[in-house]
Amino acid sequence: LSFAPATVYGVLLNYKGALAALGDTVNEPPYKAPPKAPVLYIKPANTWIGDGAPIPVPGDVEALQMGAALGVVIGRTACRVPAESALDYVVGYTVVNDVSVPHGSFYRPSIRFKCRDGFCPIGTAVVDRARVSNPDALRVRVFVEGVLRQENTTANLIRPTARLIADVTEFMTLAEGDMLLTGVPENAPLARAGQRVAIEIEGVGRLENPLVAEGRAG
Amino acid sequence: LSFAPATVYGVLLNYKGALAALGDTVNEPPYKAPPKAPVLYIKPANTWIGDGAPIPVPGDVEALQMGAALGVVIGRTACRVPAESALDYVVGYTVVNDVSVPHGSFYRPSIRFKCRDGFCPIGTAVVDRARVSNPDALRVRVFVEGVLRQENTTANLIRPTARLIADVTEFMTLAEGDMLLTGVPENAPLARAGQRVAIEIEGVGRLENPLVAEGRAG
Repeated sequence: LSFAPATVYGVLLNYKGALAALGDTVNEPPYKAPPKAPVLYIKPANTWIGDGAPIPVPGDVEALQMGAALGVVIGRTACRVPAESALDYVVGYTVVNDVSVPHGSFYRPSIRFKCRDGFCPIGTAVVDRARVSNPDALRVRVFVEGVLRQENTTANLIRPTARLIADVTEFMTLAEGDMLLTGVPENAPLARAGQRVAIEIEGVGRLENPLVAEGRAG
Repeated sequence: LSFAPATVYGVLLNYKGALAALGDTVNEPPYKAPPKAPVLYIKPANTWIGDGAPIPVPGDVEALQMGAALGVVIGRTACRVPAESALDYVVGYTVVNDVSVPHGSFYRPSIRFKCRDGFCPIGTAVVDRARVSNPDALRVRVFVEGVLRQENTTANLIRPTARLIADVTEFMTLAEGDMLLTGVPENAPLARAGQRVAIEIEGVGRLENPLVAEGRAG
């Protein structure tokens, strides 16, 4: 890793299509309603790997979900920041692959599904904020073995970057070096050991990693 | 803080009484069964405070749950460690207050309930492993305003320390400096702004913090 984050936070269901895909499920027990505040989870240090490093596929899993995410790197302490000035707290952006084991429990941020070793490849470059004119209009693409498997845009975020920072810092302080992932689009493509995945975010960069059967990841 | 952890992991429902208290609820949707592997959550850096530091009580909350927890500090990389040798990976123990906003969603590790600023007071001393002969037989006591409000023992853990390390490192690697909290007993006492809480773990130490209305915590 060329840059070491402090804490990396992911957010569930932040794409309009991802929430819509759940349909009525969100109204079932135990929550009985869509989330009212950002539902966060953490990608701890054991998940972080760099561009090009192998993603280990656990032995009991057929394929992994590739979660294309914009990584928003915080530049200074942010506590109860209004959306209007939230982007002032951002130092830059990077490309992240928020890898998951495919699972049905959409609503519960499970560490066993999201935090296995190597489940958070992070792009090499943190692109300066000044060079990303609008983080809410970036094309996001995922390629598996060179084939385009997903395309979406951060224009489809329920909470765009500034709103997300505002809503998160309403209940917890973000520190310099923390990274907030703005969400993973619906229909995250699957990839298997032996395949290569690349994620491109317009104006931010490209992140490419091979998947390797666990035990052979070195 | 006299010692800076890497990542701090809590575990849900690891006291026999805490699981029993749920009764049939564990068999309801969406999970329909008690957890089969440790259900972990993370207490990120914004939650860490030292002995004596104020715990901020959010403005919209009446009282907070005081979560007495044994903190197990990992001394070296632990990946798929068998229970028999798991304690060799421990460098020492400390007292932790795993603070929560009281909530009904017992089963979902919510960052909004568990990760507010100052929600993880951590004891000053990491007591050397050699000085704790049996981590699975330690009396745990919580005092609010000097009055004993809870008493339990780590003998009641569903997964004792070594078993917990084994089961966690089965699916993720723990690193030097990581801290695993072995769980919070059932009936965690409540405390309000203006009160002081102390947690004592036999042979490990004492941790004491005042609760202060948010905005006045300094």
